[in-house]
Amino acid sequence: METAYHPTQRTTPTRYRERAHYDRVTVHGILDEALVCHLGYVSDDRPVVLPTTHCRVGETLYLHGSTGSAPMLAAKRAGLPVCVTATLVDGLVLARSAMHHSLNYRSVVVLGTARLVEDQTEKRRALAALLDHIRPGRAADCRPPNARELAATAVLALDLVEVSAKVRDGGAVDDPQDHALPYWAGVIPLHLVAGTPQPAGRACLHADTPQNPYNQAPSRARGGNS
Amino acid sequence: METAYHPTQRTTPTRYRERAHYDRVTVHGILDEALVCHLGYVSDDRPVVLPTTHCRVGETLYLHGSTGSAPMLAAKRAGLPVCVTATLVDGLVLARSAMHHSLNYRSVVVLGTARLVEDQTEKRRALAALLDHIRPGRAADCRPPNARELAATAVLALDLVEVSAKVRDGGAVDDPQDHALPYWAGVIPLHLVAGTPQPAGRACLHADTPQNPYNQAPSRARGGNS
Repeated sequence: METAYHPTQRTTPTRYRERAHYDRVTVHGILDEALVCHLGYVSDDRPVVLPTTHCRVGETLYLHGSTGSAPMLAAKRAGLPVCVTATLVDGLVLARSAMHHSLNYRSVVVLGTARLVEDQTEKRRALAALLDHIRPGRAADCRPPNARELAATAVLALDLVEVSAKVRDGGAVDDPQDHALPYWAGVIPLHLVAGTPQPAGRACLHADTPQNPYNQAPSRARGGNS
Repeated sequence: METAYHPTQRTTPTRYRERAHYDRVTVHGILDEALVCHLGYVSDDRPVVLPTTHCRVGETLYLHGSTGSAPMLAAKRAGLPVCVTATLVDGLVLARSAMHHSLNYRSVVVLGTARLVEDQTEKRRALAALLDHIRPGRAADCRPPNARELAATAVLALDLVEVSAKVRDGGAVDDPQDHALPYWAGVIPLHLVAGTPQPAGRACLHADTPQNPYNQAPSRARGGNS
């Protein structure tokens, strides 16, 4: 397999061409790190962009959905032309001039026609990969979907063929004549970090979720009136 | 002004209706917190989704772009039908069953026809707001754009009319018969946090950026061969 995707007219930017990347390692890394992607499709001649979870298995991108949703139904009929974009924000770039402010980011755009996954083996494998994408190893550490749950979930597949990445990194780049201006310039890095895990017993105190006796202390679980 | 946007057929979800929100406070909060949005439009009958920076000024959303880009040119001609989506990921929701895994998130979808901002006063105001969105107060703390820079930058405006938010929060919600399964369930919160600011002198050591003598120590700046 070649190490890079072939650029097409649609995946060649008109500006900042040096930010475009086509090598699979860069593309895969961004898709694998991003927790959500944005699925774009056309409905009644108008664009629709929805966030969803995804995962990559080799050169196929899988997207999670529900069987009744409009894009899934369209994909089932004839395949759905889509643009899937995943973006990671790495930092704020503050320059001395307004014009040169920017963000450091890494993004991937995948163009193509998505198909609905109908093969049950592929569907199970894709759903497992979706879990492992969110949390490596998780698919083997929970109850797998039963037949009813499997039928209620839809998965779209999109081959990675027309693909590009765009990466802006490095520091603030001001015009030389602005270097002496008395404004702070530089990068404020941004990181997505995990906080303290909240086990379901605590999380279930949230108004939206039911009480979960399994995670309460035995004495309270038996107490009955808390 | 009414406190909420009017739901339309396109902003009413078919599933998880309890996650849909239309109040301006919720919508504004998500748009104001998100550092990037995803701009969707239709090009040659196919969807395109690109990440870009945005800001909200009252009930108008401004998007940053470059004058030569396809969506800006289309917007200049006749207005551009768009879908702009901003998404914040707040946590991983790990359930005991594969089916009930989820993400906690907050997203906003704005539908409408974007116009190119041609009024220079509005354009300057929008560009200042874009900077203040990235870093509050920043527009007053840098050199403002000159006429050439202003001409090289394009700004799209989109009125907040057909708008909805979607919010998933709270804990893992498993089926009661799964509560005794021996798998960890709960939420792993996620936060976007700022790291140590990297002043331009250090950032400019990065290979992608030019040397910036202003931030180097005088002895090295004069040394010439480092």
